[in-house]
Amino acid sequence: MDLKSKIREIDNFPKEGISFKDITTLLKDGEAFKYAIDKIVDDLKDKNVDIIVGPEARGFLMGTPVAYALKAGFVPVRKPGKLPGETSKYEYDLEYGTDCLEIHKDAILKGQRVAIVDDLLATGGTIEATAKLIESLGGEVVAIEFLIELEFLNGKERLRDYHVNSLIKY
Amino acid sequence: MDLKSKIREIDNFPKEGISFKDITTLLKDGEAFKYAIDKIVDDLKDKNVDIIVGPEARGFLMGTPVAYALKAGFVPVRKPGKLPGETSKYEYDLEYGTDCLEIHKDAILKGQRVAIVDDLLATGGTIEATAKLIESLGGEVVAIEFLIELEFLNGKERLRDYHVNSLIKY
Repeated sequence: MDLKSKIREIDNFPKEGISFKDITTLLKDGEAFKYAIDKIVDDLKDKNVDIIVGPEARGFLMGTPVAYALKAGFVPVRKPGKLPGETSKYEYDLEYGTDCLEIHKDAILKGQRVAIVDDLLATGGTIEATAKLIESLGGEVVAIEFLIELEFLNGKERLRDYHVNSLIKY
Repeated sequence: MDLKSKIREIDNFPKEGISFKDITTLLKDGEAFKYAIDKIVDDLKDKNVDIIVGPEARGFLMGTPVAYALKAGFVPVRKPGKLPGETSKYEYDLEYGTDCLEIHKDAILKGQRVAIVDDLLATGGTIEATAKLIESLGGEVVAIEFLIELEFLNGKERLRDYHVNSLIKY
């Protein structure tokens, strides 16, 4: 299946000059959505994954069906103040300013095998932060899976210590 | 399986006097998570559902695995400004002030059979707004599924025109 044909490109969103990759046109197509999830599951099936981690909010869309299909647990990574329990925080630099992500401290046990799933690899900042959070709890990041990769932003270079797989490339 | 035992209650979150039902302890337990999703799927399997709709962000966690399992499409309902395409908006009253939700105008076709999936039924305001958005596009809401229902808030009364199912009750 040509998954790229299911993605809608929207010019100048969220700001001038950016061509936004809209995954909602793929999600609403039940056959295409299942096909995409099964491709990710296929790449993970021999990796003995205990936990899928997905960053808020589009990582939830891709990550939970993968967890379900693998019978793995799912752990959300969220913006500050959203998780109700005790959290670990990771602050990271953006082009202008900083951002922060949180994970529940008891979400991952030492030695658990973890895969990160998200919709899109751009510069890789969010995912690097997510990997650091997992590792700070003693988890091992065994794979990172994306629906889309923007190759011209070189995010893969930043994640070169990890197994990275993406289904659609621009 | 006793799903309620998988939910963590956190007192005074997000504010004083509220006992927050934390679903992350269920999500991270792969077996419990799969069991919960399969119970929802079981209630929907004879309803010929074309589309699952989930409101941001915890509705994404429960809704996408249900869509995957049913081979249905998934359509997100989001806070204003998050969806990149042309949207329909629905404004609704809160205890203090108003809130607004959006759906892509082309997300649902006239006559499609739609189930709403979310983590928790409280007063039902968000879900009523979600149902109105679906109906404004010509979709038929054939079921509403929750992981948790707070029965003392009577949200079910507000949704009395619909088939409502919830797995855990407080």
